[in-house]
Formats: sequence, structure tokens, C-alpha cells
Amino acid sequence: MQISPLLQSLIEALRCLPGVGPKSAQRMAFHLLQRNRKGGIELAHLLHEAMINIGHCEDCRTFTEQHKCAICANSRRIESGQLCIVETPADIVAIEQTGQYSGRYFVLLGHLSPLDGIGPNDIGLDKLNIRLRSEQINEVILATNPTIEGEATANYIAQMCSEADIIATRIAHGVPVGGELETVDGTTLSHSFLGRQKIDIYR
Amino acid sequence: MQISPLLQSLIEALRCLPGVGPKSAQRMAFHLLQRNRKGGIELAHLLHEAMINIGHCEDCRTFTEQHKCAICANSRRIESGQLCIVETPADIVAIEQTGQYSGRYFVLLGHLSPLDGIGPNDIGLDKLNIRLRSEQINEVILATNPTIEGEATANYIAQMCSEADIIATRIAHGVPVGGELETVDGTTLSHSFLGRQKIDIYR
Repeated sequence: MQISPLLQSLIEALRCLPGVGPKSAQRMAFHLLQRNRKGGIELAHLLHEAMINIGHCEDCRTFTEQHKCAICANSRRIESGQLCIVETPADIVAIEQTGQYSGRYFVLLGHLSPLDGIGPNDIGLDKLNIRLRSEQINEVILATNPTIEGEATANYIAQMCSEADIIATRIAHGVPVGGELETVDGTTLSHSFLGRQKIDIYR
Repeated sequence: MQISPLLQSLIEALRCLPGVGPKSAQRMAFHLLQRNRKGGIELAHLLHEAMINIGHCEDCRTFTEQHKCAICANSRRIESGQLCIVETPADIVAIEQTGQYSGRYFVLLGHLSPLDGIGPNDIGLDKLNIRLRSEQINEVILATNPTIEGEATANYIAQMCSEADIIATRIAHGVPVGGELETVDGTTLSHSFLGRQKIDIYR
């Protein structure tokens, strides 16, 4: 294929983005060159800045270019005494969008996976243990993914909490709101029965 | 949403890529930060280089960082005496992949569209006219898109060719190979009847 070497390199580099195959990468490169060079230069600049300057919050390990992220730096967030454990920074975004939670977070950046050689210290549990014992925390909410590894990680952290005399809770598994019962898988449906709650009628 | 300002800017900048919405942009930013910072820095570098250095071939107007693209610089391509007119550089890539054509190209970077104020000189037809009269060209193959604007542009260029005493041909419209007749739209099907060709039987 007779294509300029620099353009070819750009198309290959664009494939490092998730979900971008050879066709999409080519479309992106041609689109930027033909219609939006200014946007391309701006993107290149921000990409470089972000990759170099964004590190991890020293408290919760989420992505931030400051020492502490906006949530950890917010004194109101400390008052609740709640700490929510998530696997990735994207989970924080999802939870924040619900507007339901006003405590702080701790990001594992992964989950326990002994087969891949990922142990407790690789997901920052040594740091979490120090926080559990030094800070005023009433409740640890385990919001790891409902996968086998996520459950194992949640159980491991629940054990740590019990040793530090802190209540650990797990987010509810059950039928998604707005879904239809017949389309829900069996495991989720049995979880929804096990986790059933009494309906209180106020008279 | 409590997200770091630099990260927020990166997510917004990623949306300049075609087909990337807010969710994909967020996934891309988190993916690069978490798993592939080296790839992100490399992409930023190549993006900047490409946006700054890639210009247009002085002969055919396709994208290249040299004065002439590899196709125009190839002396074997001149021998055929054929010139193929396409709307975008991506069309060249598609035609080159067929391996069917060995002449040169001319890229319009658009099509005639009087309502949008795009006239002949905006798509380089002044330059094409000079090439038609100064170079040894036997045939101009019009491979603009089979849209109303593409057809109008092809007709305009065919007129230019006739004035310069050069044969102009249009790529065939018809039923796509491997398709089923009943799923093909009516206009394409009538084109396939109008463009029917005699079957020669060699005995």
C-alpha cells in the first residue's frame, strides 16, 4: 500500500486506543488531517501532558495531577466516615454520577489474582490497612465488580476490616432496575432472592 | 462530577476523533493512563508530527510529508497514461488495495457543491486542467462517489477532458459482487441493467 510513512505510523499508533481497529484508525487519521488539524494538535498536547503529569492521589490512588484528588481534599467527604472500595477510577465516575454516595473512595487499580501474581500489596491493601487503622472510618463499602476475582477481593478486604473492628458492607446484587425478570441470568436471580428485603408498610 | 481538570480536558479532546462519544473518550483516557502510558506518549508525539508536517502532494494533492507522494514519484506509474480522479485520500487506499490499477491519481479533497460555496477551484480543478494540457494523459478515470454531488463533479470533469481531447471514463455502477439481487436498491439495479455488457463466448 502506497501511503506516506508518517501517516502509516500515526494510523498504527492510533490503534493503542481501546476499540480502534485498522479501519477506524485510518478514518481517524484522515479525518483529523482533512478537517480538524487544530483539534489534532490540541489532542496531541493534552495527551502528552496527561500521560506525563497525571499520577495517583496519595490517599485514594485515583488519577489526579495534584497530590490529593478533589474528593479526598474535600473535608465534607471525611465527615461521613464511609470508605468505598472500587477497582478502577472509572468506577468512581459511575458512582459519583448516581449522587447517592458522599463518602471517600479507595481505588485498588485491579483485583486479587494469585494466578497472575497479583497479591494484596499490588492492589494497595497495605496502604488501605494503614488507613483503616489511622483514620476515623465507620463503614467500608465494598464496590468491587461482581466477578469471581471481585468477590474474592471483597472477602479479603472484609477480613481486614473485621480485624480492624470496622463494619464492612457489600453492594447489593440483584435484578437491574427497569429490566425484565425473564431476561435476567440465573445467578443474578438467585442473588436477588437471597438478598430479599422486608417491605415496611407505614400506616 | 469530581474528576481532575487535566483528565477532563483530555476526555473532551479525545472527542474530536470521529465516532468517539463521551463514554468511549472516558474509556480511552482511563485505558491509556492505567495500561499504556508509553503508547499514549508515542501517540501524542506522532499526532503532533503528523498534524504539523503532513501536507499535500504537489501533483495529486493526497497527504504526504514529502513534496511528491510515493505514487506520483514512481516513474512506472506515469507510463500507463491513466489518471484516476477520487474525492479523498482514503479512496486511493481502497483502490490501491484492489491491485487493479497502476496509473496515477488526482485527489479533489471534496466535490462540487455550489450550495456550500464549493466551486471548481476549491477542489483543485484549475490545477487538474493544467495537468490535463501539459502531461501525457490518455484516459481520465472518474472514481468520484456515486452520489448526486459525485456525479455532478464527474460530469464537470468529463467536460473539461473533452475540451482537452482526452477520453474520460466513469467507474461502473451495478450490483455489488457477492450480494443478493433482492436486497439491492432500485436505482443501483436499474444502473446495472443500463450498464449491461455482452458476454463473449470463446469457442
